[in-house]
Amino acid sequence: VKKLSDLGERKAIECITQILSKGNIAVGPGDDCAAIEFGDEYLLITTDMVSEKTHIPKQMTPSQLGWFIVAINLSDIAAKGGKPLGLVLSFGMPKDTTQEFLEEVTKGANKCARKFGTYIVGGDMKEASDLFLCGTAFGRVKKDEFMSRKGAKPGDVVAVTGKLGRAAAGYYALKNNMQDEEIMKGLVEPFPRLDEGRKLAVVKIVTSCMDISDGLSSSLYQLKDLNNIGFEIEQEKIPISKEVLDLQKQINLDVYESVLHFGGDYELLITIPPDKFEKAVSSVKKVGISLTNIGKVVEKNAIIIVANSRKKILENKGYEHFKSHDF
Amino acid sequence: VKKLSDLGERKAIECITQILSKGNIAVGPGDDCAAIEFGDEYLLITTDMVSEKTHIPKQMTPSQLGWFIVAINLSDIAAKGGKPLGLVLSFGMPKDTTQEFLEEVTKGANKCARKFGTYIVGGDMKEASDLFLCGTAFGRVKKDEFMSRKGAKPGDVVAVTGKLGRAAAGYYALKNNMQDEEIMKGLVEPFPRLDEGRKLAVVKIVTSCMDISDGLSSSLYQLKDLNNIGFEIEQEKIPISKEVLDLQKQINLDVYESVLHFGGDYELLITIPPDKFEKAVSSVKKVGISLTNIGKVVEKNAIIIVANSRKKILENKGYEHFKSHDF
Repeated sequence: VKKLSDLGERKAIECITQILSKGNIAVGPGDDCAAIEFGDEYLLITTDMVSEKTHIPKQMTPSQLGWFIVAINLSDIAAKGGKPLGLVLSFGMPKDTTQEFLEEVTKGANKCARKFGTYIVGGDMKEASDLFLCGTAFGRVKKDEFMSRKGAKPGDVVAVTGKLGRAAAGYYALKNNMQDEEIMKGLVEPFPRLDEGRKLAVVKIVTSCMDISDGLSSSLYQLKDLNNIGFEIEQEKIPISKEVLDLQKQINLDVYESVLHFGGDYELLITIPPDKFEKAVSSVKKVGISLTNIGKVVEKNAIIIVANSRKKILENKGYEHFKSHDF
Repeated sequence: VKKLSDLGERKAIECITQILSKGNIAVGPGDDCAAIEFGDEYLLITTDMVSEKTHIPKQMTPSQLGWFIVAINLSDIAAKGGKPLGLVLSFGMPKDTTQEFLEEVTKGANKCARKFGTYIVGGDMKEASDLFLCGTAFGRVKKDEFMSRKGAKPGDVVAVTGKLGRAAAGYYALKNNMQDEEIMKGLVEPFPRLDEGRKLAVVKIVTSCMDISDGLSSSLYQLKDLNNIGFEIEQEKIPISKEVLDLQKQINLDVYESVLHFGGDYELLITIPPDKFEKAVSSVKKVGISLTNIGKVVEKNAIIIVANSRKKILENKGYEHFKSHDF
């Protein structure tokens, strides 16, 4: 008898997806959001949950917890080029949870929603043995501005927003009992790239897009399988966050493990025709964020990483639930 | 220090609601669904969760569990007169959950969605100590067809769809170890009144509407507080389900406790001007369901129940989480 611990989260979700009837859904399971036709727009819907058992470091404040569940859901709207319309939240909480804890979670969630111009419009709450938070975000995007995970073509530039490894730095700082709130924020207070997503969407030049919350390597493998293409990534081009570089001086930290495999960074990964790349860079720069070329899409269905002028196959690691976790 | 067990679910939700910023949401927390302006329509969103600790009798099959989480969310869309656009589901499941269990839950959920003309468009899954399911349904309704909880006026007829007590009968049959699958279905395979909700919405004569999943008495108290009105309910007029009447012959069952307070019936409670009541009855009859006049809206802010020609104050009981549960 197969258990979820044998399957892992991704196989379990595949198993669900195969059972579900496919209807008039423009984009269904397998992308960051579901997209449903609504006049000349798509209604975007996404849901993401976190549980005490797998996601929530003890050092995370209740307010950060609230911020986190909102931010990670908005990130999926961002990855499709969408404008958020609102969120609903559901909490499972033990009976002895204090009113103050509940209030702080709510304040953090509300703060994040307001920061990104949207609202929490409803929710539910039930008793549970361990704490979990479940969020659903919804948004809208014009059909011709929707950025799908599908569409990457050989020759396209591969690029990421911002700098990578902030979540890993936060995690390793915590693990080493370093009381650095700024570094920890990279892990527990992610910024969904909504403005950046919109800027990229309106210029209609992105061929595929997703967020890299599962880790860069894992995200690249998902795009490879969906698009039946490959990638050649240049390791030295990957933009490494200041936090990783600083932390590396203090503890034994594997920089490329942090930026390639760790996950938890809510940046956008895009592919784009090379002649349009500069336009994309200047669009994203308007909101103050960098867009960095880290390689290219190739025909061969494999992912090569080039480091010190040597090519090798990129490992597919990244975090997967049920299989392992170590907070 | 106040704990959730002191507050109870409803007070806890009030405490959340007070913190949340109110935006351009047409209808926010406090109704069955949130309603957001979307052109000349409202986008309806609702979320509802069930957890092993509070909601899930052991005898419920995984397929029924899947049906249940979809049905209870669709019921909130029904209560606003909406057409469902889809659902997303999130599962928290222990590591040792079998693949078969997951598949059965998914099949049950898909079956319910298809039965009511809609689809499950996405979801998430995480490891948890106990099983819980979290659903979000979304739908659409023209602004002038939206049935709010607000609007009940003195003189209006109070009416319910279908017959009450099916969930209570299912529960008491289970508790008494009766192996009657048909009776049990009233508890674990509810039918959202989507067709009935649409029929009532298009004629635009309903002054307020909600589902009675929390129990009839609890729902009446919610409408009373929201509308600052009262009710006079005639106990003998309440339509009692066949299951309750049958079960009463076999076990010691309090019929009026079952139909007034138990909860778990997903029927609609509406108020409607008396001269339009017959039109509502014939609209709902088109989909095969009865609509029964059980009393009237009165000015005085209290709920009176008339039984054997004697008036008394109706108790406000109904199920509330954190405070008590006994599955």
